[in-house]
Amino acid sequence: MDLTYTYEQAQYREGVQRFVSRVLAPLINDKYDFDRLQTREEVAALRADVSGHEIATTAPVDENGRLDLICLGIFIEEISKLNPSLASLATPVFFPVWDLGSLLQGSQQEKYGHMFGPGEIVAMGMSEPNAGSHLAGLQTTARRDGDGWVLNGNKIWTSNAQIAAGIIVAARNLESGLISLFLVDATRQQYEVRTIPKLGWHATSFCEVSFVDCRLDGDAELTPGKGGLKTALSFVEEARIKMMFMAVGIAQAALDLAVEYAKVRQQFGRPIGSFQLVQGMLADMAIETELSRLMAYRVASQFMAGERCRKTVSIAKAYTCEAAVRVASLGIQVHGAIGLTKECAAERYFRDARLLTIPDGTTEIHKLTIGRELTGLDAFA
Amino acid sequence: MDLTYTYEQAQYREGVQRFVSRVLAPLINDKYDFDRLQTREEVAALRADVSGHEIATTAPVDENGRLDLICLGIFIEEISKLNPSLASLATPVFFPVWDLGSLLQGSQQEKYGHMFGPGEIVAMGMSEPNAGSHLAGLQTTARRDGDGWVLNGNKIWTSNAQIAAGIIVAARNLESGLISLFLVDATRQQYEVRTIPKLGWHATSFCEVSFVDCRLDGDAELTPGKGGLKTALSFVEEARIKMMFMAVGIAQAALDLAVEYAKVRQQFGRPIGSFQLVQGMLADMAIETELSRLMAYRVASQFMAGERCRKTVSIAKAYTCEAAVRVASLGIQVHGAIGLTKECAAERYFRDARLLTIPDGTTEIHKLTIGRELTGLDAFA
Amino acid sequence: MDLTYTYEQAQYREGVQRFVSRVLAPLINDKYDFDRLQTREEVAALRADVSGHEIATTAPVDENGRLDLICLGIFIEEISKLNPSLASLATPVFFPVWDLGSLLQGSQQEKYGHMFGPGEIVAMGMSEPNAGSHLAGLQTTARRDGDGWVLNGNKIWTSNAQIAAGIIVAARNLESGLISLFLVDATRQQYEVRTIPKLGWHATSFCEVSFVDCRLDGDAELTPGKGGLKTALSFVEEARIKMMFMAVGIAQAALDLAVEYAKVRQQFGRPIGSFQLVQGMLADMAIETELSRLMAYRVASQFMAGERCRKTVSIAKAYTCEAAVRVASLGIQVHGAIGLTKECAAERYFRDARLLTIPDGTTEIHKLTIGRELTGLDAFA
Amino acid sequence: MDLTYTYEQAQYREGVQRFVSRVLAPLINDKYDFDRLQTREEVAALRADVSGHEIATTAPVDENGRLDLICLGIFIEEISKLNPSLASLATPVFFPVWDLGSLLQGSQQEKYGHMFGPGEIVAMGMSEPNAGSHLAGLQTTARRDGDGWVLNGNKIWTSNAQIAAGIIVAARNLESGLISLFLVDATRQQYEVRTIPKLGWHATSFCEVSFVDCRLDGDAELTPGKGGLKTALSFVEEARIKMMFMAVGIAQAALDLAVEYAKVRQQFGRPIGSFQLVQGMLADMAIETELSRLMAYRVASQFMAGERCRKTVSIAKAYTCEAAVRVASLGIQVHGAIGLTKECAAERYFRDARLLTIPDGTTEIHKLTIGRELTGLDAFA
Repeated sequence: MDLTYTYEQAQYREGVQRFVSRVLAPLINDKYDFDRLQTREEVAALRADVSGHEIATTAPVDENGRLDLICLGIFIEEISKLNPSLASLATPVFFPVWDLGSLLQGSQQEKYGHMFGPGEIVAMGMSEPNAGSHLAGLQTTARRDGDGWVLNGNKIWTSNAQIAAGIIVAARNLESGLISLFLVDATRQQYEVRTIPKLGWHATSFCEVSFVDCRLDGDAELTPGKGGLKTALSFVEEARIKMMFMAVGIAQAALDLAVEYAKVRQQFGRPIGSFQLVQGMLADMAIETELSRLMAYRVASQFMAGERCRKTVSIAKAYTCEAAVRVASLGIQVHGAIGLTKECAAERYFRDARLLTIPDGTTEIHKLTIGRELTGLDAFA
Repeated sequence: MDLTYTYEQAQYREGVQRFVSRVLAPLINDKYDFDRLQTREEVAALRADVSGHEIATTAPVDENGRLDLICLGIFIEEISKLNPSLASLATPVFFPVWDLGSLLQGSQQEKYGHMFGPGEIVAMGMSEPNAGSHLAGLQTTARRDGDGWVLNGNKIWTSNAQIAAGIIVAARNLESGLISLFLVDATRQQYEVRTIPKLGWHATSFCEVSFVDCRLDGDAELTPGKGGLKTALSFVEEARIKMMFMAVGIAQAALDLAVEYAKVRQQFGRPIGSFQLVQGMLADMAIETELSRLMAYRVASQFMAGERCRKTVSIAKAYTCEAAVRVASLGIQVHGAIGLTKECAAERYFRDARLLTIPDGTTEIHKLTIGRELTGLDAFA
Repeated sequence: MDLTYTYEQAQYREGVQRFVSRVLAPLINDKYDFDRLQTREEVAALRADVSGHEIATTAPVDENGRLDLICLGIFIEEISKLNPSLASLATPVFFPVWDLGSLLQGSQQEKYGHMFGPGEIVAMGMSEPNAGSHLAGLQTTARRDGDGWVLNGNKIWTSNAQIAAGIIVAARNLESGLISLFLVDATRQQYEVRTIPKLGWHATSFCEVSFVDCRLDGDAELTPGKGGLKTALSFVEEARIKMMFMAVGIAQAALDLAVEYAKVRQQFGRPIGSFQLVQGMLADMAIETELSRLMAYRVASQFMAGERCRKTVSIAKAYTCEAAVRVASLGIQVHGAIGLTKECAAERYFRDARLLTIPDGTTEIHKLTIGRELTGLDAFA
Repeated sequence: MDLTYTYEQAQYREGVQRFVSRVLAPLINDKYDFDRLQTREEVAALRADVSGHEIATTAPVDENGRLDLICLGIFIEEISKLNPSLASLATPVFFPVWDLGSLLQGSQQEKYGHMFGPGEIVAMGMSEPNAGSHLAGLQTTARRDGDGWVLNGNKIWTSNAQIAAGIIVAARNLESGLISLFLVDATRQQYEVRTIPKLGWHATSFCEVSFVDCRLDGDAELTPGKGGLKTALSFVEEARIKMMFMAVGIAQAALDLAVEYAKVRQQFGRPIGSFQLVQGMLADMAIETELSRLMAYRVASQFMAGERCRKTVSIAKAYTCEAAVRVASLGIQVHGAIGLTKECAAERYFRDARLLTIPDGTTEIHKLTIGRELTGLDAFA
């Protein structure tokens, strides 16, 4: 056990921080308006703008060539400190966070591979209006029709669907009766996408997607046979790791901003950072941020070691996301009234943080997962 | 001691609820766009739209003809349930919440009275960029010049200044050396107003106001002689009562919405309101909302009885405003992802609530006030 | 609505405070050792010691001759500030808090009346080892046998059974199949009582009581016919009001002690009460104490007005009891290390407070009650 | 970075757990009464009872022969799960946690070495009645007198002084004016010790120690010249690491007990562990316990790597100790009424946990340390 960065991790971290401060931050602050949804063209342009930077476009791998989750965490934290929407757009802009392309088999590779290339995003259609936390209850269906499939159903909270090259849709295969994953290609299929305005993460989207008799080719099923549900759930699990580090990034950004302000802002003739109640708030923020990062590394470490980690994933998801909301709220409070305005990033951190506790398992769902792991008793329904 | 409504209060409450649901809610939902700053014309139009309703345009008074603060609280809560910006605009739209017009003496009445009429708002210029919680440290000055005054300085967080008929400005009278209140008339004087975009309360403004050699008539000082500071502080104290009931209104609205949703939203084949963890959240919301309302009535009751209530005002301001943030955040959580979107009022309640803990004394300032009342020791600076 | 004391209530409060400080406190501090269980003789002696004081031995009544619950609350708070065990012993020492004697009908009055006289206590046997929060699931039985009854079963958490004149036992009447209340007279019947050592409230007891073929006379059933369960539950409901004011008393005592200490204890050359973080703790304590008292009065007021108050009772029980634990814990913290020792009452307040959140409905049970009241959905089981 | 145990650490942990369950637990539960202060003879007997177990009597070291703080943490956690008083007695019973003997120089070794042998404890006399968190303000003095010293002053919160072989006393050397450490040998010097009864940790003591013209030999100063204060503070820092793992141990013990109870205790016909609100409490306990352990390892890891870690020490001390109180309180709540009695360890965990947040720096002092590290501004006084 060693809870300090290795030399390589420390180097990687510095490299990412350098890239963010010198390259990415100026782009996001000056050229792109991240206060609103990005278009497909803007995402491609941003990809082009960063494409010369190896650290930004190459997934960090360990000595066995597998994704190094500690380094991935470092990367996600640093870009989330700048703007958590960047984490949501990480795959098209930077590198494939989760290798969805690996789901393609044989000839699928050639036919659909273009959807998984640099600059492209494939959305995940999991949740449904009537099946949020309960994937097994989904109602979207894929019906055999000749040598193809006909897809019907509605997906919700599908991120970035409006600019995606396609969508991986979880649907019930009516032939087998099992839940499976189907690939829908935006250039070949028609479906309706509605973006839903939301509290934060303004540069990326939550979408509702409707499939009405949407015809797919026969090879569109990515997980034929057994186990599409398991594959689907594994993507959800991986998404949680990304979310933890987004939480860490927002919390750290909120803390950094508050510390800087507390050092310079004067009241009663002294910097407010010299008042005990302000230090108390900063300390609470630092405690929660430090614990969040550690816990996220713990999960990353367990994942890489191949340990069973359902309990720790849920502990980490629940804690880091709730903590980020508290930290960001204190970040506003340290600033006083200016913290409530658009002239200060504190209010954006607060809005962005609030989004964390619901997707990829609400805090309550994770508590029930922890409870089940502890007691062996299921209390979900 | 009787903690139940009197017959008259219960009647008043029903009357206000009827007015809000039948008259005001349709107006706000259909005719006015309260997601953005209201113009002077819109405020006047809204005033005209409600002007036929006595309950909305007449301040509730007790048997001695004084403002009935319990009823005022009922009124503020009900309109804040609809939209807390309405509480901020209460004086021009409904009735003078605090009778600023009473500051006018003799001939001032005739000259400036028009500013305090129905539909008009007079802003309060108190805080300054370098004197937030510390009014005695303000830097705006009023200098004698001939038979008039010359005003210089910057005010910040001045609500609704961009549409106000004028501003009551706290400034140091350089002649006497004391802090005094001066009346600036928008139709006679020039000053610059900048509205500062913010997290919530979108229909009303926080403004920065700059006075550069702004010439006032000789009769513009509202509090000649001693004690402008005390008068200024008394307005702040009264504003806190309004804020408490805004907090109660937002919390109650968030709770009502969450309860309704929990009764109809199904997951795992049951209404989510039948799950213990959801009931736990609803119960936490109900506890804090109930306590907030009681505490606000307690302060109103003490005020009306003429009791010293510095400690209870601070207890109430601190508690109700922090509680509203927690309640509104739980309100989102009960809704799940839909609660994060603009399609659900929960996210607006959350943003609107977050504004409460800073103006009219931050939570920390109120804790120090409570601490001073308890110990006799001053720990502000 | 009037949240200030009436003249009579203020007078009563002063009277109780005078009695406690001049009469009761010296007795408890000097003559009785309230750090251990009181014997029957000690309770009788304490009764005798206070018997000359009308305010201590007469239940406060309103103008209709009914128990004045606001005044009762004042009484319970003041004696609980001294020691919450006194609230548990209130009926034998002071006056009947709940008139259990009213359950006696006709000839029962003569036969059993002595058990309900001054200085006597009748314990309530409700909970069972396998039916804590779920009274309907109790397993104690009363079987007809000749012209009497045979009682079998175990009761737990029966307060003061070891010194009681008898016990009112909730049991299933095997004849009717209904839950009913039976009176067991300690001078006539045999049953085994075991006191269970506990964290706080050291002067009173939690007991386990075993009835093995315990023969009762034919007139021992207090609630023949229907509805013993309802009567039993109404006692539980009333006990909750007492508990709320015990919580208020402990919290206020903890706050008072902390404030006094903070004013005199010096660190870094200043009274610790002048440090912001200490004032922050005192303020948190004051906020919760004030809210608790208000909420308890609210319930008392509703009860007296005959309003339905299941929701507010649960809000008040849940909040006041949890708040008292937090307040008492802060009370220790303000004291530093001395607060952890037996030389300071802060640690006793903390232990005494911790007992509050479980009897008469755990906090969780009350949250589910609130949830049911809000949604109409039952989530208990 | 690797947040999983190494093979050696995992082995060590298993070894300690085996020793605790097979050897130590039976001793503590059957032979020693840890509900009261241990005598010198009992400590010696316990030492003898465990002396045949290498794992219990040998400090774990890393490959460089230095104390392995991760393993020390494992050891402290496991014995604290059994009883945190064991951690306070670790040095006499098991192995020297901090090598106080290393303070002896040259001939001191021969003369005083016996005090630091197995089974012996040397107490630390740091705090004073008027200098708790503020070591520089201490008032105990050491005055030169012939070839010896005369010690005068009072120490408080000196653990285990009543059974110690001696005390290391922080006092102001009146010759140099600096704070220095002096060794007082119980077999040679006279001083008065008073044990102060307290809330928890019943087997060990808080003592008040009075030195009245206590004569020491000339070689009794352990830190001649500069820097006794720094040495004194370094012991305090090290003591904090022990405290963190005590917190972890208590929390884990409370969680384990609650989980076991929740699995078997039935209410409404189901194990209570199947209720969502109970799972919610267990999850909260698991989250805080997991985070506490991680954070403690983080500090241990930094210490071993020689990194500056004032901020993380304070984060860890503040968090783990506050968390243990919350976890232990929930542990009671999961049990219901039985959790309040001496028949269940939950109430002891709660009392033992409450002691953690004050010694070795109160939570508030640590927040100010964190605040100073973040802002560079001192807000202590």
